[in-house]
Amino acid sequence: MPQGQPVAVPDDGLTTAQRRQLPLLMVHTGDGKGKSTAAFGLAIRAWNQGWDIGVFQFVKSAKWRIGEQTVLERLGELHRETGEGGPVEWHKMGAGWSWSRKAGEEADHATEAAEGWAEVKRRLAAEAHDLYVLDEFTYPMAWGWVDVDDVVETLAHRPGRQYVVVTGRRADPRLVDVADLVTEMTKVKHQMDRGQKGQRGIEW
Amino acid sequence: MPQGQPVAVPDDGLTTAQRRQLPLLMVHTGDGKGKSTAAFGLAIRAWNQGWDIGVFQFVKSAKWRIGEQTVLERLGELHRETGEGGPVEWHKMGAGWSWSRKAGEEADHATEAAEGWAEVKRRLAAEAHDLYVLDEFTYPMAWGWVDVDDVVETLAHRPGRQYVVVTGRRADPRLVDVADLVTEMTKVKHQMDRGQKGQRGIEW
Repeated sequence: MPQGQPVAVPDDGLTTAQRRQLPLLMVHTGDGKGKSTAAFGLAIRAWNQGWDIGVFQFVKSAKWRIGEQTVLERLGELHRETGEGGPVEWHKMGAGWSWSRKAGEEADHATEAAEGWAEVKRRLAAEAHDLYVLDEFTYPMAWGWVDVDDVVETLAHRPGRQYVVVTGRRADPRLVDVADLVTEMTKVKHQMDRGQKGQRGIEW
Repeated sequence: MPQGQPVAVPDDGLTTAQRRQLPLLMVHTGDGKGKSTAAFGLAIRAWNQGWDIGVFQFVKSAKWRIGEQTVLERLGELHRETGEGGPVEWHKMGAGWSWSRKAGEEADHATEAAEGWAEVKRRLAAEAHDLYVLDEFTYPMAWGWVDVDDVVETLAHRPGRQYVVVTGRRADPRLVDVADLVTEMTKVKHQMDRGQKGQRGIEW
């Protein structure tokens, strides 16, 4: 990718180096492919820099394990074994968050999503991770399962040097407003339109 | 991500299972972020399925190593050591392709791009890999360094079960036409607009 040049230098009293260090709030939205894949790609890149990664999948049924989970957890294991890269935690809804519920015990999705956000909020306050992937988090925001103003306020004023990437369709305008980097993935053409279903290795 | 449902079932004489196995030609284009990151994320996912991965970076100056290269090469090493995942080859232009040129020897970019494409074409004919990432390949196509009709013809009629993802801005309409899945990444908002430069761990 070409080296980017800022189009304007802001009058914020920061040096370029200081500005470069500002932690980012990123949003991947739109109806196209690649929102989560690009977010997990960022996590891979961040792992390589030794960052502490926390992934939180806010999907209704995350019982199936995607390839990125296996690979990122394997990278987290490598970190423990050899010191390469950084630590990785991967949490997902669907069968209960790993920190809150016993196997087999079920909660409704709204409650679970709210619990997930409460945990992320605690971790942000504690500066637990360097990069948070809040995968598909736009949906609990859209469905009223979490308070959007609380989310936006918390993310906008998170302490320290914590990067956050939120994925999912129809990102709330208030979230877009406080984000530093918003990318919309738009479907131009998709094989499902001609009747081809999802494929192992590509879709999961 | 929600499970996709095809909107129409084509009358192509294939069963759903057969159609599901059709190898995909994918294009990530547009001016936004995430084109390459999502492609490398696909490679991570494919590695986890045991696929043979070939990455070809058609960038003018690929002397710097991005995090994904380190991680994917590390995963390729894991494959050799433990049998996990699949094999990985990562090739890049800039200081000469690894298969063609001695260290320090330079070719002009147009020649190098054409050599890169000729090698990819040989590998496609030999069914060398399961997934090809042709990173930033839209640029040599746009600049006339490779013959677009040759590229389109070769990719459209590649033998066997080989997946290809092409990234870069301004994808040629002929490429889009033969692709199965085209995603446009659109910049909605970018921190560079407010004078923040690229960041380690995020941009590379």
